[in-house]
Amino acid sequence: MRTRPLKVALLGCGVVGSEVARIMTTHADDLAARIGAPVELAGVAVRRPDRVRAGIDPALITTDATALVKRGDIDVVVEVIGGIEPARSLITAAFEHGASVVSANKALLAQDGAALHAAAEEHGRDLYYEAAVAGAIPLIRPLRESLAGDKINRVMGIVNGTTNFILDKMDSSGAGYQEALDEATALGYAEADPTADVEGFDAAAKAAILAGIAFHTRVRLDDVHREGMTEVTAADFASAKAMGCTIKLLAICERAEDGASVTARVHPAMIPLTHPLASVRGAYNAVFVESDAAGQLMFYGPGAGGSPTASAVLGDLVAVCRNRLDGSTGPGESAYAALPVSPMGEVVTRYHISLDVADKPGVLAQVATVFAEHGVSIDTVRQQGRPDSDGEASLVVVTHRASDAALGGTVEALRKLDTVRGVASIMRVEGE
Amino acid sequence: MRTRPLKVALLGCGVVGSEVARIMTTHADDLAARIGAPVELAGVAVRRPDRVRAGIDPALITTDATALVKRGDIDVVVEVIGGIEPARSLITAAFEHGASVVSANKALLAQDGAALHAAAEEHGRDLYYEAAVAGAIPLIRPLRESLAGDKINRVMGIVNGTTNFILDKMDSSGAGYQEALDEATALGYAEADPTADVEGFDAAAKAAILAGIAFHTRVRLDDVHREGMTEVTAADFASAKAMGCTIKLLAICERAEDGASVTARVHPAMIPLTHPLASVRGAYNAVFVESDAAGQLMFYGPGAGGSPTASAVLGDLVAVCRNRLDGSTGPGESAYAALPVSPMGEVVTRYHISLDVADKPGVLAQVATVFAEHGVSIDTVRQQGRPDSDGEASLVVVTHRASDAALGGTVEALRKLDTVRGVASIMRVEGE
Repeated sequence: MRTRPLKVALLGCGVVGSEVARIMTTHADDLAARIGAPVELAGVAVRRPDRVRAGIDPALITTDATALVKRGDIDVVVEVIGGIEPARSLITAAFEHGASVVSANKALLAQDGAALHAAAEEHGRDLYYEAAVAGAIPLIRPLRESLAGDKINRVMGIVNGTTNFILDKMDSSGAGYQEALDEATALGYAEADPTADVEGFDAAAKAAILAGIAFHTRVRLDDVHREGMTEVTAADFASAKAMGCTIKLLAICERAEDGASVTARVHPAMIPLTHPLASVRGAYNAVFVESDAAGQLMFYGPGAGGSPTASAVLGDLVAVCRNRLDGSTGPGESAYAALPVSPMGEVVTRYHISLDVADKPGVLAQVATVFAEHGVSIDTVRQQGRPDSDGEASLVVVTHRASDAALGGTVEALRKLDTVRGVASIMRVEGE
Repeated sequence: MRTRPLKVALLGCGVVGSEVARIMTTHADDLAARIGAPVELAGVAVRRPDRVRAGIDPALITTDATALVKRGDIDVVVEVIGGIEPARSLITAAFEHGASVVSANKALLAQDGAALHAAAEEHGRDLYYEAAVAGAIPLIRPLRESLAGDKINRVMGIVNGTTNFILDKMDSSGAGYQEALDEATALGYAEADPTADVEGFDAAAKAAILAGIAFHTRVRLDDVHREGMTEVTAADFASAKAMGCTIKLLAICERAEDGASVTARVHPAMIPLTHPLASVRGAYNAVFVESDAAGQLMFYGPGAGGSPTASAVLGDLVAVCRNRLDGSTGPGESAYAALPVSPMGEVVTRYHISLDVADKPGVLAQVATVFAEHGVSIDTVRQQGRPDSDGEASLVVVTHRASDAALGGTVEALRKLDTVRGVASIMRVEGE
């Protein structure tokens, strides 16, 4: 074993960073044995240096992250600040000054992954980011390495724990969205401003990263169709149950059937209770992968939190340090396939549509005609009068597979029918 | 990209080997792009050269596997023959003649992993074997690399598809063991001689490999306690259901609570229906991992079959070829922790025991005394008269956690009681 330590600069010392520092200390012998050399925490860049940080030598604390990454003797920079800047500039500077980088920054990777990979390659350094998607769940490495000899056709996952907690709560208790969100906030699963989670921004960043790796194609955040889950209602869950389904916020990355393009999207969807993703409870994450040879795989675990995210960061740190000692680098960006990313209109799936209609003869025929005119084939229709309403009935239509554009056209035409009082909900049906 | 191809020798061309050869041909461009150089099938060693092999150039076929691995121009040997010899000699010869090795051979790795790793290291070559455990499910790489910065405490999995199919059938249909086995055989899930599967030999080999990687300790097949599942009855499933459990054949690798030793075992066990492993159906495999920082992870997918196993082999092939081009090697054996492997008697878990007892007062007190004398604490007792029997009753005891040795002593003493007519079944309760 080499005795001269590898030097690690830690950028950020919040929930994740402090766990990384703690484990580097308490498990120093194990890490050294697994790497083949000791690792030393050489500096910790923070915004508030006055905060007490148990177990970290105060002499290592600095507010000058830029100076830290430019020191020149740093082997690996661990970036757990999050956000675009200053993280992007710091990572770029790290490469320029000879360090490899381990990052947990999904937003930055989703937006600027290509440029960062190019910078890493230019300087012959590693850029690893297992922690950026689904916390502790090994996902990037299995997709990028274990399945490197296979053809991945679909990646479908629950990649945001906050929204899964809320939806699971709604499902199990019959609570409405706001009530479930309030509980998630009280328990610390949701932030004071939950927008990034409930509007699907967080999941969309992860979808971009997963799609890029799965399809060997650059997929940016802007390429990902995104719908939040704030409009999911208790009534939607009742409809889902009637179909033997539940509702999850899914990130779905798909190769088109002809193989010539890909799509990436985030939205709430019904999935059958028999699907492995349906039983993912609470704040857990899980990602379902379908490939030509391997078939159906699923990866399950905690998708967030200090310790789980630190586990992923440290796994990357060990790998990057080994490469460093070996004078090699791991697999970089693989974007050779360069498939076009199709817009949402070309996505093909099934739909569950609830309509409020006039309770009189001929309505179903009118509605069915609109579906037929737009080339959307109906699987089942359920019609029911509502005793408490003024001559209104409910019509629930489940379609066969159709494009999002065709469905959109159908719904637009339905809204124009006199007999359709309103479109109560539209939800995609996945995983069948 | 390098234009000179990397040369691959394929040993074995059965269900897995033929899929490896097929994908190497049909996905040649993708593999070349991902590796950075083309890969060429340079020879295929088979036992029966006269059999027609679609898509493989007959000029590549040879019966002389030894000559093939000793050619000197082979970059990677893919071994999918199985069994101890000649696979062991061929792999050793491959290293001596400069090749890296990808193997799917669980029996050989479990028995001689240390020696093979040493040979690989001596010659500066790679030995990869993702396909040896749980088919297509990425497991070796996540344990060895993704969790390299974490401390794994338990690996508990369904790693044999045949036995899971049989147990799932018994659970869902109420069938007995023989009936379920017959169906598995008819459907091709069980071999004509199912011994290796149903007696747990296959799962034990996988447990040895998983324990070795998880605990950085050499664990050999002989270190694994093994019990088959041929004596699981429909009555056991009824008991399990009454407890909110099902029965699975589990491979369990555990670190002792004091961290100073490890155990590995394979046996049928009850697990709660709420545990993620309980819902693993049919011939699927799944492995549940618990670690200090990551928490609970699960990996799920097809555990066998030509295509899934080929997916794992090809993932390894890509990695080994990349290393080859890089002039580096991946992580080799990590056995630095060298923890002692404790015997089964030291394993601590819970037990479900069914006793046939005389239906008269005082029996429960006698039985409870025996448990107490052996230091085994009782959680629940259920007592019921059996109208169809001659003065007999059934006593079902579920214990708190106790050592296997203490439980064994308890059962021995129970058998000596006049009032205990027989011990109908003993089953461990896991996953709580």
